[in-house]
Amino acid sequence: MRVGDKHYRTIWMEGTKVCMIEQNLLPFSFRIYESDNYRQTCDAIRTMIVRGAGAIGVAAAYAMVQAIHEAPEDQLMDFIRSAKKDIESTRPTAQNLFTSTSRIFNAFKESPHSAINEATRIADEDVNSGRKIGQFGNALIRHNHNILTHCNAGWLAFADYGTALSPIYTAHREGKNVFVYVDETRPRSQGARLTAWELHNENVPHAIIPDNAAAHLMSLGRIDMVITGADRIARNGDVANKIGTLSRAIAAREYQVPFYIAAPLATFDLQCVSGKDIPIEERSEKEVLYQNGPDESGAMREILVSSPGSHAVNPAFDVTPAKLIRGIITEKGIIQANEKEIRDLFR
Amino acid sequence: MRVGDKHYRTIWMEGTKVCMIEQNLLPFSFRIYESDNYRQTCDAIRTMIVRGAGAIGVAAAYAMVQAIHEAPEDQLMDFIRSAKKDIESTRPTAQNLFTSTSRIFNAFKESPHSAINEATRIADEDVNSGRKIGQFGNALIRHNHNILTHCNAGWLAFADYGTALSPIYTAHREGKNVFVYVDETRPRSQGARLTAWELHNENVPHAIIPDNAAAHLMSLGRIDMVITGADRIARNGDVANKIGTLSRAIAAREYQVPFYIAAPLATFDLQCVSGKDIPIEERSEKEVLYQNGPDESGAMREILVSSPGSHAVNPAFDVTPAKLIRGIITEKGIIQANEKEIRDLFR
Repeated sequence: MRVGDKHYRTIWMEGTKVCMIEQNLLPFSFRIYESDNYRQTCDAIRTMIVRGAGAIGVAAAYAMVQAIHEAPEDQLMDFIRSAKKDIESTRPTAQNLFTSTSRIFNAFKESPHSAINEATRIADEDVNSGRKIGQFGNALIRHNHNILTHCNAGWLAFADYGTALSPIYTAHREGKNVFVYVDETRPRSQGARLTAWELHNENVPHAIIPDNAAAHLMSLGRIDMVITGADRIARNGDVANKIGTLSRAIAAREYQVPFYIAAPLATFDLQCVSGKDIPIEERSEKEVLYQNGPDESGAMREILVSSPGSHAVNPAFDVTPAKLIRGIITEKGIIQANEKEIRDLFR
Repeated sequence: MRVGDKHYRTIWMEGTKVCMIEQNLLPFSFRIYESDNYRQTCDAIRTMIVRGAGAIGVAAAYAMVQAIHEAPEDQLMDFIRSAKKDIESTRPTAQNLFTSTSRIFNAFKESPHSAINEATRIADEDVNSGRKIGQFGNALIRHNHNILTHCNAGWLAFADYGTALSPIYTAHREGKNVFVYVDETRPRSQGARLTAWELHNENVPHAIIPDNAAAHLMSLGRIDMVITGADRIARNGDVANKIGTLSRAIAAREYQVPFYIAAPLATFDLQCVSGKDIPIEERSEKEVLYQNGPDESGAMREILVSSPGSHAVNPAFDVTPAKLIRGIITEKGIIQANEKEIRDLFR
């Protein structure tokens, strides 16, 4: 993706360093964060310097590669096993993370060298999946469509292209007139900060809305379809995604608005029978009680946006049941959210 | 309501001054704003120094009284008619405002003195309605209930007591163990700022949640009932209330959580056939794009919380259809949200 006049991936390796766009600073400043070792990369995942299903998956792969470089020769396997656990403990809901650590670990059992190749493959597959999801999803988008999206499943959430936004970019580049309603996506405001920034850079017409306004706009017929990403998809088609997705899906059914999920195969977890088995990450209440951003002088400030003395509950994801999902847009085509079609994907 | 060791109403008159708690500064500082004339009171309603269905109604009544005092003797009726229009143009959705201006205007046609008495009556009725709503609503609340509320329909939204929170205060004082999930209520965060502040002052156990988390908590069975206020109720039982109410009502039906509205008779608009006839206020996009609050030094700051260059859409209310409402808690008892029961209220 271009930022200014340079092409960027969201995350890449230089030697044993993992370089990533510092997403906590976006869109107010654009900086590259460099992680020197796998523990730093774990922290970067945990603190959401890098976030988004695919980008977390690639970060996990690169963290495994760093661990391989850092491992003492005489306790290689122990070190890698322990690093794998550390990496997997950073974000419990994100399936791409577990897909990556398993793939790298299996490759590592052949040789360290094939593990490194596998990491490159994971990143490239992520990019290519996003491109194909864009092509398949584009077929669903008609001229003059108003599309609602939640959180950020654009190129910042992947190594490049993204999932939910990829069909929108494809449609826009083809000259279709599309308008995107961007859920703010409290508490971390990935919609207002990241998705709006991406769409602005790509000149896609859009407006930020408070999360509370989505059902209202649907009730007025102002939304033609909803597309979101996914953090984990159970084998029955239930989808864990950013908190608030469930409420959009329920409202979409009420107003007969088609609700689509866009996700690569790396997000599917065939071990998970249903959404009930997906662990839901609880994050710090501070994300709800405080907010940060630049003041009028441009200085970054953290302010209290709630009543002092009150606490908050902050679940980061929710589970949308398969019955509310019109289809899942994958790099192999659009499927129904049910076990048969999901199993067929992996044949 | 007590603040510190003093009893307050949210709004009152001293001579020809209208005094009100400055709600834009809460909960970070507690100040009384004094309006010297009806135009200042209009501005206070518009800028939400005073907000909430009942408090707006009382403010409108007091603004009418100020206009009567300000009117030149020789053009009394013209001045009052024109002031009435000014007052009614401040917040288009809030029915209590129109109920008040009509009542004062009708009383004024008898005499200026009866208009002034009528304003006192409106404020006292608002207080008494809140108290009775508390008693009727309390019957719905069981020990160990977890209750979700949206926006602020507590004593700050009325002259005293409030509507949605009044049953909760009554239940809590009776010794029932209740826990309140407080929707943050973006973009103006009346839940996180005002409702949380009220509940904290009353020692009612509660937690702020992102608006996005409400459906998730319902899906987990963690919410036993929802109570919100109302800004206008059409005669078929459709309810306009703070943006986001609709999405809670749709989710509540999905998970069989009873959804109640609490509102006094002054909020009903028998002229409105259905929710389609209720005008929905659009407010400035700045409320979505920026947020204010104290930084770590306590200085109030306004910060940008979205991508520069992006716009926002900011409808302030939505309409919840009658079919999603289990009951409406009024000062005359709990009714079904349908035309027959609403008409019976006014018999």
